[in-house]
Amino acid sequence: MKSSLVRISTPFVVFLGDIKDEIYGKTGFGVVQWRGTECVGQVRLPGCRVDTGVPDCDIAAARAAGAKSFIIGSAAVGGRIPSSWVASLREAAAAGLDIVAGLHVRLEDLEGLADAARRGGSRLINVRVPPAELPVGTGRKRTGRRLLTVGTDCACGKKYTALALARDLKRRGVRSTFRATGQTGIMIAGEGMPIDAVVADFVTGAAELLSPDNTPDHWDVVEGQGALFHPGYLQVTVGLLVGSQPDAFVVCHDPLRTSVEGWEAFPLPTPMAVIERATSLGRLTNPGIRCVGVALNTSKADPAERDRLLASYARQTGLPCVDPIATGTDAIVSRLLQEFPAPQE
Amino acid sequence: MKSSLVRISTPFVVFLGDIKDEIYGKTGFGVVQWRGTECVGQVRLPGCRVDTGVPDCDIAAARAAGAKSFIIGSAAVGGRIPSSWVASLREAAAAGLDIVAGLHVRLEDLEGLADAARRGGSRLINVRVPPAELPVGTGRKRTGRRLLTVGTDCACGKKYTALALARDLKRRGVRSTFRATGQTGIMIAGEGMPIDAVVADFVTGAAELLSPDNTPDHWDVVEGQGALFHPGYLQVTVGLLVGSQPDAFVVCHDPLRTSVEGWEAFPLPTPMAVIERATSLGRLTNPGIRCVGVALNTSKADPAERDRLLASYARQTGLPCVDPIATGTDAIVSRLLQEFPAPQE
Repeated sequence: MKSSLVRISTPFVVFLGDIKDEIYGKTGFGVVQWRGTECVGQVRLPGCRVDTGVPDCDIAAARAAGAKSFIIGSAAVGGRIPSSWVASLREAAAAGLDIVAGLHVRLEDLEGLADAARRGGSRLINVRVPPAELPVGTGRKRTGRRLLTVGTDCACGKKYTALALARDLKRRGVRSTFRATGQTGIMIAGEGMPIDAVVADFVTGAAELLSPDNTPDHWDVVEGQGALFHPGYLQVTVGLLVGSQPDAFVVCHDPLRTSVEGWEAFPLPTPMAVIERATSLGRLTNPGIRCVGVALNTSKADPAERDRLLASYARQTGLPCVDPIATGTDAIVSRLLQEFPAPQE
Repeated sequence: MKSSLVRISTPFVVFLGDIKDEIYGKTGFGVVQWRGTECVGQVRLPGCRVDTGVPDCDIAAARAAGAKSFIIGSAAVGGRIPSSWVASLREAAAAGLDIVAGLHVRLEDLEGLADAARRGGSRLINVRVPPAELPVGTGRKRTGRRLLTVGTDCACGKKYTALALARDLKRRGVRSTFRATGQTGIMIAGEGMPIDAVVADFVTGAAELLSPDNTPDHWDVVEGQGALFHPGYLQVTVGLLVGSQPDAFVVCHDPLRTSVEGWEAFPLPTPMAVIERATSLGRLTNPGIRCVGVALNTSKADPAERDRLLASYARQTGLPCVDPIATGTDAIVSRLLQEFPAPQE
């Protein structure tokens, strides 16, 4: 079996179950925000109080509208799947829709779902499960250009920043592809590599597979995972960095945190410390690696405080500093295109 | 299920199949060399031309001598298991011996073996398969002391150096335990963690589990894996380093190599470069980490050349430099005990 990425067919319908709070629907909102043109609608159960803004439909209507995948866009409290949800999954699978989930439970283990999928000729796609037969990293230089988002911690905007950079590069007429490494990212991109679920020996190889050779003017924007000073997950980040062999990276940082979230004995590193560490590690497979900007999450700051933070980090690092949600990423994109001019024809 | 290490019952008998060349019996020679007192003998098939030096026996005699495990100490050419070997495995499993293998094929997939194990009440132990339910690394400081062997490349003496250091510490009256991270090491130690087969997210946690809290005077000597400047495997090394949180490390180096074996585009790093990198990465979980010596593999050098090499690396690094096979590790052990005096009662 030739190994490849996890892949999701489109268009899709997003399933929200009966959740009451947007916080449980982050994946659903993500796929609608970033991939709305491929979304035929949302399926909600009675009692659901969350709305992603796309038209409501049932499974038959989704099928009629051409949907090929049924993306579970919400998480149930406690991580289990209520039986009322499973009934909808069976109906969708039996109707021929691939069921796509990023859950801790395997879809195959839900009652009757494997049978329904067999009847409907549909696939059960657990995006947390990496492809089989991954290669070992070779370190071979690939054609095309790559940018990686690198965090000072987990959950500080690496996915959003990568999505925004890929979008904003396209707006400038630069060919670019968002390369997903986590479950929500994979659902948004429609393909990707759940890098933290890969067996340790194959992390660099999986990262190489994720961003293959491309044309010289093309940018892969790779979603970062983990953090380089994280006592639990740094090995994932290091493997992704060396396998991605990025030309450029952007540091993502939450300026209000003081320690690694959930690992309070570990102080949060500064963006400068992460820039130095990522540069020295990344040189192994790309001697020209450099940082091109800092992305702050200033969602908890008021506008004046935000401006002060952005200016302060820009001064500390000598690099463009943005909040991708509040200010967009244009300043970083400009710096990137200045540092890496388009190759001559 | 509480997660734990891969564990092998003793005493054991070593199985060599019908191999013709010692190179295919490295595991068998390793377990006999390092664990001979727990080995009741060797089982060889007709045509075998390799001898580990322990008494020949058949499966019934091994059982009668108290053997609890049947360790496959040889690899077949091409990685497959010949059917003549499988017959012996079935016989041993049916006789109640645990079958222990570090092969790429799973023992469960060999014809009739699972049935034989059920009949005999024996276990099939694939030492390449990590335990289930591993934890995420916490970074919490553990009691007791730890030393890790760190290579400038793969296959340059990390296992042998760790075994020799643990043995030589014991000879000085210092409590120490060899902690195995690879298949042969696990067979020698009787337990361990196949660290490169662990899912990426859990490498630091698996390393923490491997060397738990201990008394303040005790040294865990952890077998290193991979290499910090290795484009394929560095993520394994980094996770093992940070999860082991070693107080001390020893750099293992083959002075005749010029590039990473099998990755010829990558120059071999110097021991000094590895010392700097391991120190800066290891500080995350142990700010006092330091290098206490260099172990060279000089097996291809004549005695004069060996002396010249040892002196040269000692000068470059300012550290004791040994060849564990040719000179023993005493110089490093002395340095270690000087840097880390026994705690006062």
